[in-house]
Amino acid sequence: MSGDSASFAMRPVGVVRSCFREKFGIPRQPGLVPAAEATIELLPPADQPETVRGLAGFSHLWVVFVFHACPEDAWHPTVRPPRLGGNERVGVFASRSPFRPNRIGLSLVRLDEVVADADSVRLRVSGADLLDGTPVLDLKPYIPYAESVPDAQAGFAPEAPQPRLAVRFSPAALAEIAARPHLPRLRELIEQLLALDPRPATCREEGRVFGFRLYDFDLRWHVVAGEAEVLDLASPDRSNNPPGDPS
Amino acid sequence: MSGDSASFAMRPVGVVRSCFREKFGIPRQPGLVPAAEATIELLPPADQPETVRGLAGFSHLWVVFVFHACPEDAWHPTVRPPRLGGNERVGVFASRSPFRPNRIGLSLVRLDEVVADADSVRLRVSGADLLDGTPVLDLKPYIPYAESVPDAQAGFAPEAPQPRLAVRFSPAALAEIAARPHLPRLRELIEQLLALDPRPATCREEGRVFGFRLYDFDLRWHVVAGEAEVLDLASPDRSNNPPGDPS
Repeated sequence: MSGDSASFAMRPVGVVRSCFREKFGIPRQPGLVPAAEATIELLPPADQPETVRGLAGFSHLWVVFVFHACPEDAWHPTVRPPRLGGNERVGVFASRSPFRPNRIGLSLVRLDEVVADADSVRLRVSGADLLDGTPVLDLKPYIPYAESVPDAQAGFAPEAPQPRLAVRFSPAALAEIAARPHLPRLRELIEQLLALDPRPATCREEGRVFGFRLYDFDLRWHVVAGEAEVLDLASPDRSNNPPGDPS
Repeated sequence: MSGDSASFAMRPVGVVRSCFREKFGIPRQPGLVPAAEATIELLPPADQPETVRGLAGFSHLWVVFVFHACPEDAWHPTVRPPRLGGNERVGVFASRSPFRPNRIGLSLVRLDEVVADADSVRLRVSGADLLDGTPVLDLKPYIPYAESVPDAQAGFAPEAPQPRLAVRFSPAALAEIAARPHLPRLRELIEQLLALDPRPATCREEGRVFGFRLYDFDLRWHVVAGEAEVLDLASPDRSNNPPGDPS
């Protein structure tokens, strides 16, 4: 029963549908971008309304998932967390890096709605930092009396990253946002994402154009005079775009 | 990349050594029994001091583990949480029951010490609700700005169970505790465990003797006139003991 040498086969109980189609641009922790909405679709055999009975009484939900876009067994004993500027190394177990043994991720999200109908069971959540297609291994209600420790000491990451950049939009970008009325929080989402300054720590020159995929388009933007400017929402022909996160 | 149908093989990165040798008696959530100490031993290839570099700066640690004492695939869409008296059913994803798909557990523990020497890497933790031998799949630092939500709504489990029982010790029990000076917090541990009244919700008659395994002995106790009395710390010959948790 020691389990020392066993291997455990895990099958997804759900899959994430989110605006994030690549790693670049995803907030470093959940909760930083409240407008980041996602849906968790339960998969058979967990896709029964009974499995989520009573869940709507909880405001927050743990999502245990696999960082499926990271290669397996690509972890190193130390990582360079972005909070330390990308230079200093800490142990992988002292970090929330996705490059880790077993590639398990843990995200606390706000639970907005439980939708259970004849066809499917879906959880609408927000504040998510989850890549589209993420396999979900487990869902658990948040228990504040056991899991809220406001005065916990948190090593090198004690405080939330503050929004650093003002964000403005080109006329083209505003028109492209207005052409997507099915995404009513899109402008808010882009503002919250870029305010966090998702430029890689090692690559921050002003004027350089960055692009990352959101929904079905590439968000193209640059930083000029300390402000982020959204250039456009381009069709996803990546050939003309500069690279995203080089890490 | 959807991951819908994939299966993921997970190998333990560590194993728990704790006082809890069976499920009966283990607190329902971490943090309720601060004197419950445990050690997490890292396993190869994660047993390198580098993997925990910087971890000592964090006061709290997430342990992602497997409920290995629960049979695989023994889950049902609904469970009867003890907080509801064992009668009402809620969805498995609205509960922290160990009988769940993939059997993944999540515990927040206090990190007391990181011990890395030539032979092994070990984390001493407390407030643990972890069975001895538990396979650990991941360790993550607690990030209070993202994970402390004191005002989260928590459905049927909003508040911590309060200690309900005064605890007294028979002379025999006190002598047996005194004979174990290598366990300096043993009396405190027993008091904290029994104060929570670990009797099964459906089986609480006064005077009935319960026994559960702690370390290398069986703790035998009963409740009389609303007080728990520790009878003795018996050698683990279970044949004469009443059954533990019948669930």
